Amino acid sequence: MTILRPAPLTQDAFAPFGEVIEVTGEAIEINQGTTERYHDLARVDVSAEGGHPLINIFRGAATPLPFEVRMLERHPLGSQAFLPMEQVRFLVVVAPPGDTVAPDQVQAFIAEPGQGVNYARGTWHHPLLALGQTTDFVVVDRGGPGDNVDEVHFDTPLVIEPLT
Amino acid sequence: MTILRPAPLTQDAFAPFGEVIEVTGEAIEINQGTTERYHDLARVDVSAEGGHPLINIFRGAATPLPFEVRMLERHPLGSQAFLPMEQVRFLVVVAPPGDTVAPDQVQAFIAEPGQGVNYARGTWHHPLLALGQTTDFVVVDRGGPGDNVDEVHFDTPLVIEPLT
Repeated sequence: MTILRPAPLTQDAFAPFGEVIEVTGEAIEINQGTTERYHDLARVDVSAEGGHPLINIFRGAATPLPFEVRMLERHPLGSQAFLPMEQVRFLVVVAPPGDTVAPDQVQAFIAEPGQGVNYARGTWHHPLLALGQTTDFVVVDRGGPGDNVDEVHFDTPLVIEPLT
Repeated sequence: MTILRPAPLTQDAFAPFGEVIEVTGEAIEINQGTTERYHDLARVDVSAEGGHPLINIFRGAATPLPFEVRMLERHPLGSQAFLPMEQVRFLVVVAPPGDTVAPDQVQAFIAEPGQGVNYARGTWHHPLLALGQTTDFVVVDRGGPGDNVDEVHFDTPLVIEPLT
């Protein structure tokens, strides 16, 4: 059994996997100063093979901890962004793009309230891992023709222990 | 002074303006039953004239009530979706697509917690109207070349009174 320890979710640490979507950097002031626009926070990469963007809501059940990571998936034809519709934490488990995943390439992060993620096209990631309560997420991903999901399965699970 | 009374935000009432983005209808069960996917809830219409989808966060200040609606805007080249990142209400003020807007064409809605909206391309709408507290919204709209905003201004404001 291998323990997988979640790290804080930062732009730098997550850069190999996509983007952290959060209020950061310079805002553009719009609407007569009543709104700050944090502009173009993710690379929405969904047009391969005739694809187009979708907006969905994913309702994710709370993940029981400890949790055994036994598989990851990837979307070879498009990016996929997750943004919670509540101010809550959630778990992010990823591995770099590539044909296979070695267990020691897997990384876990804790998204803090106000943070979302965009998985770059081809980035291995675990399906949605809400924490604490059932949570709705805005999901921006790809619709269109083609087979857009691959999976890898691990012989030995990676274990995420209860968070402190 | 004309009073503009907000109505409940329902799919049917909002159909002339775009889509209500909410958990509704049949879910697709995914991720070994841990997630319900409410699929393709809005028409993301952003490819005109070389456009592409953007994901942004808009941080909207609370709207003081009573509020005077003095203008609307539209995006002739793309749709624009708003989904709050907290479980809060917000105001939606719209008018049908067209070259001009008569004051009696303007409608207001109250989005309840868990609801978002997608303004169809060309739909007149008021800039973001958060309620009660500063609120972050996920915004999915269009990036790309071209002039993508028009405004109309009203001689006499339409007034939204404090909500009960």
